[in-house]
Amino acid sequence: MFLVTNDDGIEAKGLKELIDVIRSFGKVVVVAPAEPQSGMSHAITVKLPLRIKKISEEEDVVMYKCYGTPVDCVKIAFNHLMSEKPDLLVSGINHGSNSSTSVFYSGTMGAALEGCINEVPSIGFSLLNLDHDADFSAARIYIQRIIQAVIQNGLPKTVCLNVNIPDSVQDQIKGIKLCRQNMGYWREEFDKRTDPHGRNYYWLTGSFHNSEPDAVDTDEWALARNYVSVVPLHIDLTCYKTLRKLDDWKL
Amino acid sequence: MFLVTNDDGIEAKGLKELIDVIRSFGKVVVVAPAEPQSGMSHAITVKLPLRIKKISEEEDVVMYKCYGTPVDCVKIAFNHLMSEKPDLLVSGINHGSNSSTSVFYSGTMGAALEGCINEVPSIGFSLLNLDHDADFSAARIYIQRIIQAVIQNGLPKTVCLNVNIPDSVQDQIKGIKLCRQNMGYWREEFDKRTDPHGRNYYWLTGSFHNSEPDAVDTDEWALARNYVSVVPLHIDLTCYKTLRKLDDWKL
Repeated sequence: MFLVTNDDGIEAKGLKELIDVIRSFGKVVVVAPAEPQSGMSHAITVKLPLRIKKISEEEDVVMYKCYGTPVDCVKIAFNHLMSEKPDLLVSGINHGSNSSTSVFYSGTMGAALEGCINEVPSIGFSLLNLDHDADFSAARIYIQRIIQAVIQNGLPKTVCLNVNIPDSVQDQIKGIKLCRQNMGYWREEFDKRTDPHGRNYYWLTGSFHNSEPDAVDTDEWALARNYVSVVPLHIDLTCYKTLRKLDDWKL
Repeated sequence: MFLVTNDDGIEAKGLKELIDVIRSFGKVVVVAPAEPQSGMSHAITVKLPLRIKKISEEEDVVMYKCYGTPVDCVKIAFNHLMSEKPDLLVSGINHGSNSSTSVFYSGTMGAALEGCINEVPSIGFSLLNLDHDADFSAARIYIQRIIQAVIQNGLPKTVCLNVNIPDSVQDQIKGIKLCRQNMGYWREEFDKRTDPHGRNYYWLTGSFHNSEPDAVDTDEWALARNYVSVVPLHIDLTCYKTLRKLDDWKL
């Protein structure tokens, strides 16, 4: 049994494409946000109750929408909708990149990390194209291959995969590269405007600053050269190197 | 210059206590959410514009509220409100624990990790007491000491600190323990109710499951024994051990 979710919402093309790929492997439960949830990271809904609605039921695919975040979807799937934890959780296919430190803001990766926290093998998939009608045909080939490999090999209990796919046709993609997470940050500019009542408001805009453009082992490097990037992420954020050094502080 | 934020919102007692401690070190800019933002993790506001309001200005402390998430507060502080990046970002004092994997859901730690992504030394502080009128007097002593140490020693560029403080009086706290992040997860139960229109809704509730209760080097272990826990977190989520093994998959 497989669980599918995303952050672009139940109507997104990327979700439908991912369901199409994974249903060839077995039975599927889909629990996806009723509304788009980009940028929701690992957020959970604590101030409001959740609502869920079954929207379709075929022999191999049952679909629910959940009025909450991607992580809410995973929690209500694991703890309420599914009788046992799934063999695999897949999240996506996100419309847009989740490489480098964007993993922190990503609802797609929030859901995958939540699967991982719950000891379910989990993968997040993203295509480097924001268009709602993006072409996922090359992406599907690689997603099929990566899902197959995870089913065969399993994943360590505290590790999930972050998979990003270049926006290219199949014969231009050079293959899959195993990478580490690139370091970088977003340089935000706040677009200041004034509303009809004379009050200011700000739109968040920005551009990504790559702090290590010359490093050849990162996801950013691989994607810029038309490779599919696969980064294994873990849920232990401890920096062990620093932990050893902090002893010197004599706290 | 120091930046202070939190996730419990501009009115929270924990924020006021943190401002009181840090103003003894120098000038302070506060940018905190206008409304409580617990569970908002690293979420950013992308569908709506942000609004900010200066609410007070003293010689050493300027306060703004921002109608957004904790990470929105950090972004608008760094990129719009402050002429240069602060020497230190402190987030909290959170009303409630952010130990173990709770760091993923925490808006307090979302803000600290955002500081870290932007290469600003950052610390998140949490007290293990959810009460809005909690007693922070013992916490303040340890926070003062830890801030002093970070100012003296600095932090590596990709590392921030997650500090949790037991809910005890000063002479019962045994000191500070340097720890790794505990592994565990929340076992959710969804409290199902029916609204006056006959439709179901669900409240998220749950209890924490500690996957390694006997490990003596974790933050959970330290807190259970009345130590202040300090965990250095980094923003590179790559699992290097798995990265080396994935080569065998021949993807």
